[in-house]
Amino acid sequence: MAQQDRAIRTRRLILEAAASVFDDLGYDRATIAEVLERAGVTKGALYFHFASKEQLALAVLDEHVLDIAVEPQKIKLQEFVDAGQVLAYRLRSDPIQRGAARLAVEQGSNHLDRKQSMLAWTRFVVELLDQARDRGEIMESVVVPETAELFVGAFAGLQLMSHALTNQADLSQRLTIFFQHTLPSIAVPAILAKLNLDPERGAKLDAALQGKALADAAADAEAGVPAR
Amino acid sequence: MAQQDRAIRTRRLILEAAASVFDDLGYDRATIAEVLERAGVTKGALYFHFASKEQLALAVLDEHVLDIAVEPQKIKLQEFVDAGQVLAYRLRSDPIQRGAARLAVEQGSNHLDRKQSMLAWTRFVVELLDQARDRGEIMESVVVPETAELFVGAFAGLQLMSHALTNQADLSQRLTIFFQHTLPSIAVPAILAKLNLDPERGAKLDAALQGKALADAAADAEAGVPAR
Repeated sequence: MAQQDRAIRTRRLILEAAASVFDDLGYDRATIAEVLERAGVTKGALYFHFASKEQLALAVLDEHVLDIAVEPQKIKLQEFVDAGQVLAYRLRSDPIQRGAARLAVEQGSNHLDRKQSMLAWTRFVVELLDQARDRGEIMESVVVPETAELFVGAFAGLQLMSHALTNQADLSQRLTIFFQHTLPSIAVPAILAKLNLDPERGAKLDAALQGKALADAAADAEAGVPAR
Repeated sequence: MAQQDRAIRTRRLILEAAASVFDDLGYDRATIAEVLERAGVTKGALYFHFASKEQLALAVLDEHVLDIAVEPQKIKLQEFVDAGQVLAYRLRSDPIQRGAARLAVEQGSNHLDRKQSMLAWTRFVVELLDQARDRGEIMESVVVPETAELFVGAFAGLQLMSHALTNQADLSQRLTIFFQHTLPSIAVPAILAKLNLDPERGAKLDAALQGKALADAAADAEAGVPAR
């Protein structure tokens, strides 16, 4: 394995361990020692990648947004629904998404700026909704920034409720219910009738995305390109 | 002041101090010592009312639901909107509601059962929506428990986002936007057209409720009834 490859994998290993510690203990009670224990790496390896617990948390929060890139769809609003469902699915299955979600919703008694995570998500949703508007998919009455912030805020709460009641098992279903209640006020009728709000969609899309990532990595390896 | 009166007031004083400590520090970092300091009462007085930090937290969470009793309205869905807006207003102004909100959304690394708070809120909303259904105010397609849980979950998230971005200053506005997006999927059109979703309504209703409580207390005092 090339040295650069190994460094990327070690960084990922540390990030996943840190996210699971944040998920279990929260920011305040998380320790570097616990992250080292779970990652099985040396202190030197960790500090090579991350200068502090805060840096670790910020890196975990960064992954929260960057990880969601769904397949393009004919209807842009379907991509909006899909991004939500993939995220909901990953909050069940992916330690980094779980850790990031807890960091994003904990009320700060420390220096982490949780606003940034919410604002980054809002920008992501605004962009999708603006594209949907350009294509005539959403109603004139929709104020995109308001709808985007509603989605981000409500999602945080649904995630929290699902975590408390079912350890995220019913989050996809809760998200579908949210879409069923709000999309009739957002989408024009002809688009609304074509949207797929199936709560199982997140798992299917995630599997497709993982498959594509693996195929890309295999193609890169064949071509001698370093791991992405 | 009668001894019973004094005990009720001391209990309230301790509860408000505890809630403000939970709001500022979270459950894990809150201490009985800090509550004593803020309440200005003796350790003996505190332990007369509350056996532990956990008991204090549970009592704060209890107030979260019990405190919202809005004036009856001709349209039951208006009471549903009003309860949300009064709560949103109190989350800005009332230390107990603020502390309870933080306790209710913190992911537990301790023995507090946060489920109970969410389930109690859900029962409260289910009851209002069932009454609205009995009066023909909501559409056939509405599944009351789903809509109630959506409301409770989404409210928790909007509260969290408002806290992070504006220290709750825009929560009433966010709640109005939530109602604007969801009520067209809940209320029958003739009712929808009559609902008042004004974000300023919470402040007005709260003032009216406080005025009524003061008048009741004055009437009770005149009649020699102990404080409620």
